Amino acid sequence: MSRTPISQLGEFGLIRHLTQGLKPGQSSTVYSIGDDAAVLDHKGKRTLVTTDLLLEGIHFNLEYVPLRHLGYKAVAVNVSDICAMNATPTQITVGLGISARFAVEDIEEFYAGVRAACEHYKVDLVGGDTCASVNGLTIAVTCLGQADDKDIVYRHGAKPNDLICVTGNLGSAYLGLQLLERELQVFRSTQHDNLAKATEHDEAIHEKFEGREYLLERQLRPEARVDIIQALRKAGIKPTAMMDVSDGLSSELFHICTQSKVGCDIYEDKLPIDYQAVALAEEMNLNIVTCALNGGEDYELLFTCDIRDYEKLVPLDDVYIIGHVTPAEFESDKPEQPANLRLIPRNGNPMPLTAQGWNAF
Amino acid sequence: MSRTPISQLGEFGLIRHLTQGLKPGQSSTVYSIGDDAAVLDHKGKRTLVTTDLLLEGIHFNLEYVPLRHLGYKAVAVNVSDICAMNATPTQITVGLGISARFAVEDIEEFYAGVRAACEHYKVDLVGGDTCASVNGLTIAVTCLGQADDKDIVYRHGAKPNDLICVTGNLGSAYLGLQLLERELQVFRSTQHDNLAKATEHDEAIHEKFEGREYLLERQLRPEARVDIIQALRKAGIKPTAMMDVSDGLSSELFHICTQSKVGCDIYEDKLPIDYQAVALAEEMNLNIVTCALNGGEDYELLFTCDIRDYEKLVPLDDVYIIGHVTPAEFESDKPEQPANLRLIPRNGNPMPLTAQGWNAF
Repeated sequence: MSRTPISQLGEFGLIRHLTQGLKPGQSSTVYSIGDDAAVLDHKGKRTLVTTDLLLEGIHFNLEYVPLRHLGYKAVAVNVSDICAMNATPTQITVGLGISARFAVEDIEEFYAGVRAACEHYKVDLVGGDTCASVNGLTIAVTCLGQADDKDIVYRHGAKPNDLICVTGNLGSAYLGLQLLERELQVFRSTQHDNLAKATEHDEAIHEKFEGREYLLERQLRPEARVDIIQALRKAGIKPTAMMDVSDGLSSELFHICTQSKVGCDIYEDKLPIDYQAVALAEEMNLNIVTCALNGGEDYELLFTCDIRDYEKLVPLDDVYIIGHVTPAEFESDKPEQPANLRLIPRNGNPMPLTAQGWNAF
Repeated sequence: MSRTPISQLGEFGLIRHLTQGLKPGQSSTVYSIGDDAAVLDHKGKRTLVTTDLLLEGIHFNLEYVPLRHLGYKAVAVNVSDICAMNATPTQITVGLGISARFAVEDIEEFYAGVRAACEHYKVDLVGGDTCASVNGLTIAVTCLGQADDKDIVYRHGAKPNDLICVTGNLGSAYLGLQLLERELQVFRSTQHDNLAKATEHDEAIHEKFEGREYLLERQLRPEARVDIIQALRKAGIKPTAMMDVSDGLSSELFHICTQSKVGCDIYEDKLPIDYQAVALAEEMNLNIVTCALNGGEDYELLFTCDIRDYEKLVPLDDVYIIGHVTPAEFESDKPEQPANLRLIPRNGNPMPLTAQGWNAF
């Protein structure tokens, strides 16, 4: 593959090259790329805005993440935030900081992923900023969405007796990451050996990934659950609180319970877990329940809804009731954070949930 | 000054700490920080969105840029983009990637600048993303604004005979940067010597900056020209095309002329230049006209307006007519880019303007 230095196109040439042929599809997009700002019209609707930063070495490792997948994921995780408000994503902006080791073709790959995601989620790419960086790839995506005021679901609306639901399954993206990291270590330790060995290793890696493709896909190319938002609407269900699972189920439950001032009971045997995840956790000697509770990046939806919606909820595909909301109990030293977030294991003795959350600092 | 490791607060603790007490002031801010997305209501108005990435080592050097000024500037440059559309800035989101060398107090300083700018420009901070980074400080700001459709000014509306105007003065921010860079080199070359010498040097630096404070301020703490937008509105002037001067006057003229399909004549003796800039350019052996034409980061406004607005334009403070729009002439090899962007020097022999623009790649 030929590699064109970015300096050959320059900043404006690169932007033109990457965004040519983009056609807005959202009726709210009045004016898109090409001026100081994009112009949008959300007349009579609420506008929603969310932003995410993805940094090389922190959020992704280009040794095993293809740039096209990364572009797709950068859009999907922002779309997921808008879905988590029960709203419709409409536009995105993409900021890119690019270091000297990237060529035009690399950035094309990244943008091919961005475009694929824009098409899939029907969002318009309406602007951005492209510049050089000293080290690595920096990605900043902002997503706008719209909704009627009455439809918006916040984190603070859960109330006692509400059902707690999650979509899809949990822990798969985390286990996909563990698999990639493990194989990368093996690869690094063998790459100084001779070529024959490296080829042997390539075949070995291929074998290692066989039957694990689903976990890799969950890590490398997550999808925002726009389908669930549509299914809930169709079923006439408006959740009382909702979030997407980006930092891990436990961490998100803490957000919803703290903001809603409630507690919760979650049942271990109700947690939806994929069989590939179970098998890999076993092989890697990891506790699968811990993976499901604290593994991040699943981008599934966690929501609570009124118990009277139970009948409407049951027929929905890929939605699982994992517990219920309880009245909050507080400890005197932490008057703001409910103390009764509990996991009910198979043996029936409740254990406190711990919000490991994510602390890379 | 005490330094608190960021790990002591964690991601959520840090965000809470930095955003506590923030009160939305814009009526369009329905729900701000604390959920997956902010909720805005721009009913009956167009929404505008712009985004900017500021990367350490590329856009700023923390050896001489105070974090508080950087926070202010990060907001100001985005507000400037919304102004350049003749719109009112309303909300911002701030994404921050923070490496291990920063403590909570550093990020507080940065946020103090962000808050000061938010107050000054009356924009609400409604969301963001805070995470660790491997190297240096990464800043991603997105700014939203609003305007009536009829008021929005694009880059593509200039027509022959329109007057070309700029605000404030040009080249000052660039010369401020040259001054800071020069003193940094001197400082680096002496810092390995003994302490007495370093103190001598501190005094010398102080002297070097005396009488140059305005240039430093233009580089370190630029202001978006919201005042000009208001003055134009009050005077009943709607520009035909407008941009802010971030990459340099020449580069911005190329954008306006290309998008409007026109040429331009700019008069050297009409370019507004501050006397401190003239003096420093002389001392540093730089051509002041080149600085004014190609120096970036002034964040002044460049606009064109109908010649019938001349009488309304003249009484306006800090607005200078520097030339006029001409019909486009094209060369056969570049059918998209007008070839007649000209500088008329004092001797009267037109010279082609060159779009050096900015190419850090």
